[in-house]
Amino acid sequence: MYNKLLILGEDHMDVEQLTINTIRILSAEAVERANSGHPGLPLGAAPIACTLWAKEMKHNPKNPKWINRDRFILSAGHGSMLLYSLLHLFQYGLSMEDIKNFRQLDSKTPGHPEYGLTVGVEATTGPLGQGIANGVGMAIAEAHLAAYFNRPGYDIIDHYTYVLCGDGCLMEGISYEAASLAGHLGLGKLILLYDSNSITIEGSTDLAFTEDVAQRFEALGWESYRVEEGNNIEEIKKTIRRAKKNSLKPSLIEIRTEIGYGTAKQGHPSAHGEPLGKENIEGLKRFLKWEEEEFTVPHRVKEHMASLVAKGEEEERKWQNMWEGYKREYPQLAMEFERWIKGEIPMDYLESQEFCDFDRDMSSREASGILINRLADRIPNLIGGSADLAPSNKTYMKKRKDLSPGNYGGSNIHFGVREHAMAGILNGMALHGGLKVYGGTFLVFSDYMKASMRLAALMELPVIYVLTHDSIGVGEDGPTHQPVEHLAMLRALPNMTVFRPADAKETAFGWYVALTRRSGPTALILTRQKLPLLKETGRDALKGGYILKKEDGGLDIILIGSGSEVHLIIKAAELLSERGIGVRVVSMPSWELFEQQDEEYKERVLPKEVTKRLGVEAASSLGWHKYIGSGGRIISIDSFGLSAPGDRLFERFGFTVDNIVKEALKLL
Amino acid sequence: MYNKLLILGEDHMDVEQLTINTIRILSAEAVERANSGHPGLPLGAAPIACTLWAKEMKHNPKNPKWINRDRFILSAGHGSMLLYSLLHLFQYGLSMEDIKNFRQLDSKTPGHPEYGLTVGVEATTGPLGQGIANGVGMAIAEAHLAAYFNRPGYDIIDHYTYVLCGDGCLMEGISYEAASLAGHLGLGKLILLYDSNSITIEGSTDLAFTEDVAQRFEALGWESYRVEEGNNIEEIKKTIRRAKKNSLKPSLIEIRTEIGYGTAKQGHPSAHGEPLGKENIEGLKRFLKWEEEEFTVPHRVKEHMASLVAKGEEEERKWQNMWEGYKREYPQLAMEFERWIKGEIPMDYLESQEFCDFDRDMSSREASGILINRLADRIPNLIGGSADLAPSNKTYMKKRKDLSPGNYGGSNIHFGVREHAMAGILNGMALHGGLKVYGGTFLVFSDYMKASMRLAALMELPVIYVLTHDSIGVGEDGPTHQPVEHLAMLRALPNMTVFRPADAKETAFGWYVALTRRSGPTALILTRQKLPLLKETGRDALKGGYILKKEDGGLDIILIGSGSEVHLIIKAAELLSERGIGVRVVSMPSWELFEQQDEEYKERVLPKEVTKRLGVEAASSLGWHKYIGSGGRIISIDSFGLSAPGDRLFERFGFTVDNIVKEALKLL
Repeated sequence: MYNKLLILGEDHMDVEQLTINTIRILSAEAVERANSGHPGLPLGAAPIACTLWAKEMKHNPKNPKWINRDRFILSAGHGSMLLYSLLHLFQYGLSMEDIKNFRQLDSKTPGHPEYGLTVGVEATTGPLGQGIANGVGMAIAEAHLAAYFNRPGYDIIDHYTYVLCGDGCLMEGISYEAASLAGHLGLGKLILLYDSNSITIEGSTDLAFTEDVAQRFEALGWESYRVEEGNNIEEIKKTIRRAKKNSLKPSLIEIRTEIGYGTAKQGHPSAHGEPLGKENIEGLKRFLKWEEEEFTVPHRVKEHMASLVAKGEEEERKWQNMWEGYKREYPQLAMEFERWIKGEIPMDYLESQEFCDFDRDMSSREASGILINRLADRIPNLIGGSADLAPSNKTYMKKRKDLSPGNYGGSNIHFGVREHAMAGILNGMALHGGLKVYGGTFLVFSDYMKASMRLAALMELPVIYVLTHDSIGVGEDGPTHQPVEHLAMLRALPNMTVFRPADAKETAFGWYVALTRRSGPTALILTRQKLPLLKETGRDALKGGYILKKEDGGLDIILIGSGSEVHLIIKAAELLSERGIGVRVVSMPSWELFEQQDEEYKERVLPKEVTKRLGVEAASSLGWHKYIGSGGRIISIDSFGLSAPGDRLFERFGFTVDNIVKEALKLL
Repeated sequence: MYNKLLILGEDHMDVEQLTINTIRILSAEAVERANSGHPGLPLGAAPIACTLWAKEMKHNPKNPKWINRDRFILSAGHGSMLLYSLLHLFQYGLSMEDIKNFRQLDSKTPGHPEYGLTVGVEATTGPLGQGIANGVGMAIAEAHLAAYFNRPGYDIIDHYTYVLCGDGCLMEGISYEAASLAGHLGLGKLILLYDSNSITIEGSTDLAFTEDVAQRFEALGWESYRVEEGNNIEEIKKTIRRAKKNSLKPSLIEIRTEIGYGTAKQGHPSAHGEPLGKENIEGLKRFLKWEEEEFTVPHRVKEHMASLVAKGEEEERKWQNMWEGYKREYPQLAMEFERWIKGEIPMDYLESQEFCDFDRDMSSREASGILINRLADRIPNLIGGSADLAPSNKTYMKKRKDLSPGNYGGSNIHFGVREHAMAGILNGMALHGGLKVYGGTFLVFSDYMKASMRLAALMELPVIYVLTHDSIGVGEDGPTHQPVEHLAMLRALPNMTVFRPADAKETAFGWYVALTRRSGPTALILTRQKLPLLKETGRDALKGGYILKKEDGGLDIILIGSGSEVHLIIKAAELLSERGIGVRVVSMPSWELFEQQDEEYKERVLPKEVTKRLGVEAASSLGWHKYIGSGGRIISIDSFGLSAPGDRLFERFGFTVDNIVKEALKLL
């Protein structure tokens, strides 16, 4: 059908159409040159993205970090060349050389869009569905900042969030979870553009995906729209405008397209993920009446883009004028706004004794709850919640309101039983800027969040995970709720800092780390059960591993533990000391922080010549041999837990003072 | 409202109502005694489950493994006392002593239902949403077996699958994914009973969950029904019957209930997850006019249950009669049916040279694809598919048909882009019995499946994961698609066997392991890129780690690797040998299998006195120190990958023969 559309020669073609074709050609050429990539989506969806960027999206390529820009996420990240073509045309800083280096080592144009690597990329995408949750997070951030800062006549924060997704994104469960919450919250400025081409890798979507997507979204509280013809620019534009006007509900716009449009592979799965081939590219160029050299943007398109870029600059200029007025009328708020955007933190308070002051025994989750509430008094942009476990995770900020439909100024978010979406939404909120975000669930349910946590780590976002119920100490809920392998899972994740504190004080230092690190997420691993407050713990916890109790005299053995097990090794050390054994106790709340210390410090804590080392951690032994060495032992759990009171389980699995002493003596 | 219902005294009460109340009281008493647990769901949902079990469900407590029984999954696993009460009343083998030992060490009544531990528990549940995917898997298994074996007049397999879930299950993304596929396939014998009580842990579902659930399911191709009054047994029964009659669509029955029914906590979140307290239990007993001693089943209920159990026996007897006729009329099919149910495998073929015969270089995914097709010719109950990556995962059985709506006899399943549901569905299919199941995706997307993979491991199900694109070897798709931490994540999971073969032959042994192990899942970790066929690889791969090349003369250093890196260490060993160094090459496809060998074998492969060891694996180093020891080194990737051709990345990250030689020389 599309092929029958009358396409004018390049010279006579409408410049908008010519721009769209430029995106198509650049995308196809770059994939071909790389001999790798996904041409199908850019060919089909170019009219959608180009119309949005040129006509509807408020953005200033000259200042990609303008806080009030509309956000655009390519959730279908495999279509990266669509985004790179746009970034090139809109002068975001991607040169034609960059386009030619698509998918090459150290280029700015990797296979999937990467946040932080390429200016103008708002989120790293590729794992499907994630971008939709990111978009929901951005829309929540926008609504929250607007509610907090906007004043009559001064809509300092007032922008849309656009997400472009395909069938694959919508099949992923995270898209449902995030969309259900977005519908509940009535995020009217979230617009999901659905590139509906009915093709997936295995074939037609009819093979596995025959649901009524529009009805599904309506059931979730969205408004749905449909554009029947993916090349109908006018209709796309009008529909986006209609969606923008609907401020009470998020909008789904389904736009029917053809994957691999304009080629012999059109409408075929083979258009999705492999180069078109020389012949098909030539066919595409003939079909589009393309007359330029390879990797060339037509002159008329360049002129057109220049005017669009100027329009973007003008948009920000208007906003800057408003911002100047705001600063005059609301100087305090304006200063606060700037602090939020810069991500400033009350370091003096975090460094103070007051922050880490505790005077009684408590679970580390309770300590975390107290700390969150201390922080809430001093960090107004602290915002977060739990996946329906707030009373257990202790994540609720008591003096703050709920973020709820129409009340976006609240900062306690009820994510519902949606761990995956929570993690994806936290990523979106962190990406948006202006907020300090956290989310809680049981450690065992980090399983549900893993794909989004990985993206937080890859994007180096400072997201904070409050993961409670951290071992068999969970007790009666049994093995389904007792994490065993999760510490290893998270420690293996690059850029993730895992912090498992031994008492309330160390929990404070965990929060300190989480709030002050800028280059990646932090997982706070917290107990359900009560922990004694130790006199030995202190600020050195920030080094990840430190000597809690030094040996008397010679050093015969080092006991190393984290979290609730530190209490056991302290007691075991006392008993061993009484036998005249030189025993050192090392608390290791964070392997990652310990690894960041210099060799001299590490050697001081764990001297190489001391090979008798006993690690104690109520979790998988995987990874521990690095610290206990060939001569050491580890008391761990390499099976699943059981259902029984937590103290009974600690006994059963060998986490007792007696057993630690016994194992230590065996080593000696 | 409910409280105003006229409740007769125990003596005059209808025995059905009395049975329901018995479940309520037992559940509340057991939670109270354990001082831990979830009374809210059993109190509200007892009429649903009891009506189903007593009147609609076809099951024979005297033979809980009857293959044609209806399946029942308590997806809301926290309501375990509901299930245990039913199992006790229906004489499944749970004694009153077991009920009293709820949540105690080594009891048969753990906090959440555990498959394999408690007779009559069809699936381990607790992590929300999983049971729904399990149910979809069971319904697929039922449809497939029925299509394959049933003959006119002989519906050997013809049963329903019932899942009881709550709001929490429905909020999880996996419930959407699984339901979308179930609707697509038109699984008419799947019935989802939705205990709709509008309460979650944080409060009313209005806080986060206001979607139109019925409309959502209708959009997914389900029929939806609604029962307004959760105590209306007659209406529940009638609605289940209506749902059973609808054979073309899966059914959702939303039943409005009150959490913590009959107590002062009714309709309150505090009824969910903590004991009611003595006073509330007394109030409940007064409200229900309960007059028995603690932990007592009224005599009339016992009599009633005996008749229901007899009814169940009669049901199976009728089926046995039919089965006898079937055996006479279709002796070959009947024998095959028995083989499927027993899980028999053509061991002679798996042991043959033919099975592991390869004569050319190829990627391990390609080898796996060839093996799947070899197996498909000999294992008719092999069934599986991919989450929309079959062409990449090489999971398609070419001589088999697709399993599609109305064509349930096919055995290639198109799961759609639904990794999580795929893994949950595979669990359900394995639980059902009769089938050998596998599912494929990229290794990096095991992230999406982790929660379900954990349950496969916990339930010790022989599910096979075909995880391809196993390292930076993925190349241009970049870090979002390049697994780094996933080997560690899976190795840390108890009961999971991870197998990363070095060539096509080792891939065959990986499949051998996957098909022959009975007590847990297997993850086959396969390359995208081509691998040389090694003359050195062989059957010893089944030992998880083995000597590929023995040293000439003295042993100076051991090179250890897995998968694609084995080729590099073999070449490096040649260069080192040329320098007169005694070097041994060890292939380690599976740590778990290696750990299962006796100490003598392990010592033979990795002698303790040889401390110069170099591990090489294109993945996180986490866990490797166990094998390289304090004196060893590891060439690994502890950051994210990059986007570039795979061979360039191997160079960049140090996976070259030169670098291995260099690092080995450093060690020496």
